[in-house]
Amino acid sequence: MEKKRTTIVLFSGDYDKAMAAYIIANGAAAYDHEVTIFHTFWGINAVRKQSPVEVKKGFLEKMFGMMMPRGAEQLSLSKMQMLGMGPKMIKHVMKKHNTLTLTQLIDMAQEQEIKLITCTMTMDLLGLQKEELLDGVQYAGVAAYLADAENGNVNLFIG
Amino acid sequence: MEKKRTTIVLFSGDYDKAMAAYIIANGAAAYDHEVTIFHTFWGINAVRKQSPVEVKKGFLEKMFGMMMPRGAEQLSLSKMQMLGMGPKMIKHVMKKHNTLTLTQLIDMAQEQEIKLITCTMTMDLLGLQKEELLDGVQYAGVAAYLADAENGNVNLFIG
Amino acid sequence: MEKKRTTIVLFSGDYDKAMAAYIIANGAAAYDHEVTIFHTFWGINAVRKQSPVEVKKGFLEKMFGMMMPRGAEQLSLSKMQMLGMGPKMIKHVMKKHNTLTLTQLIDMAQEQEIKLITCTMTMDLLGLQKEELLDGVQYAGVAAYLADAENGNVNLFIG
Repeated sequence: MEKKRTTIVLFSGDYDKAMAAYIIANGAAAYDHEVTIFHTFWGINAVRKQSPVEVKKGFLEKMFGMMMPRGAEQLSLSKMQMLGMGPKMIKHVMKKHNTLTLTQLIDMAQEQEIKLITCTMTMDLLGLQKEELLDGVQYAGVAAYLADAENGNVNLFIG
Repeated sequence: MEKKRTTIVLFSGDYDKAMAAYIIANGAAAYDHEVTIFHTFWGINAVRKQSPVEVKKGFLEKMFGMMMPRGAEQLSLSKMQMLGMGPKMIKHVMKKHNTLTLTQLIDMAQEQEIKLITCTMTMDLLGLQKEELLDGVQYAGVAAYLADAENGNVNLFIG
Repeated sequence: MEKKRTTIVLFSGDYDKAMAAYIIANGAAAYDHEVTIFHTFWGINAVRKQSPVEVKKGFLEKMFGMMMPRGAEQLSLSKMQMLGMGPKMIKHVMKKHNTLTLTQLIDMAQEQEIKLITCTMTMDLLGLQKEELLDGVQYAGVAAYLADAENGNVNLFIG
C-alpha cells in the first residue's frame, strides 16, 4: 500500500504558526506519512542558523538579513507579542508543561526524515544563502512542492 | 458511497477568519460532508463561553484568560480593526444584509452536527478548562485531527 | 485520465500572500491542473480595478471602498510593511531579480485560464460592485467553491 502524504507550505515567520506547522508535521510523520514542509517567504526564517554566518552580500540583502529574525527562537508571536513579553510568557508555560520548543520540534522533524525544503525564489529575493540555513535543508522551487502536494492526503498552507 | 469529508484547523482568533471557517464548514455540511473544525492556539477563543466561569487557576493562566477574548463576539478583525470601530462597522453591515453573526454560525454548526474539537495541548498551555468552553465541544489532540484529515477531501488551515 | 485540480481560497489582502497564491496557482496551471482562486473578504482587493470607477453607493460602502486598497499594486505586506518602505524594497529586489509583479501574475493567471472567482457575500458586505472588479472575474458563493474543492488534489486557504 502506498504511504499517505502530508505537505505544509510554511509561509509565516511567526513562532506560534511555525510551531503549529511542525507539530502537525511531526504528528503526521509519527503516523507514517511522508511529510514535506516547504518554507517560503518569512517561513524561511525558521530554518536560519541562529549564529551569524560570514557571507558576501549586497546592501539590500544585508538589510533584509538584519531585519529578519535569525532562526527559530527569534521568531515573534502572531498575537500577544507585547514587545517581547508574549514569547517569554509562552515559552515559560511551555517549559512548565514540558512542551517541545520550536528548535526541538525542528530537530525531531529532521530525525523523522521530514523533507524540509526552502523556496529558492525566496532565497534569491531576500538574499539568503545556503550557508545561512540549517544543514540538511533542501532547496527547490514551487514545482517540487506541487509534485509532492498533488499526491498529498493532507495539504496545508500556514500563512 | 462514502461521505465526503471536510476538516478545518482554526488557528486564528480573528472574527473575520473564524467567520470564513464557519461559513465554509456550514456550507460543506449542507452538501452532506462530514465536517470537523479543530480549534487550536488562538482559535480556541471562538468557542469560549461569553460569561466568566469560576475555575481555579494559577497566575499566568489567569493572565492569559483575561488577555484573550472571551467568546465569538469579542474577537477582533484581522484587518481594519481601527480601535474597535472595524468590528462595529462590519457587524452593522452584516445586520443590514441579514448575514449570520459568528455566534449564529457556531450554533448552526452544532445543529448540523459538525464536530467541534478543541486542542488539548493548547488548553493546557493557555490554562483553559472545559467549564470555560461551549457545551458540546470535544477535546482531542493532533492525532485525532490527522485521523480525520487523512481521509478528507477538503482540508484547510485557517491561520 | 481526469485532470488534476488545485483550488485556493485567497482571504488575505496582503501583497506577499496574494503573490504566494498566484505563484502556486500559475505553477499548478503550468502542470496542467484546473485551477480556481476564490477571492473572499480582503482577498477581493487583489482583483479590484486600479482606477476609481463611478458607481452609486451608500455611505458605509463608500467608506469601505476608500479604506481598502484599490487593486493589486496597492496591497500592503503582511510583515515589514514599515510605513510603506517594505513594499518598495521588495518591489525593488523583485525587479532586480526579474520576478513577476502581482499584476503580471494575475495577467498570467487569466492567460492560463485560471478561474478567478470573487465571493458574492463579501461583495455585498463590503459594497463592491462588478464594475469595480477586473474584467473576466466570475462571481459565486461558497457552494461553487466547495464544488471545485471537493474534487481538488491541492486545496489551500491563504489567510
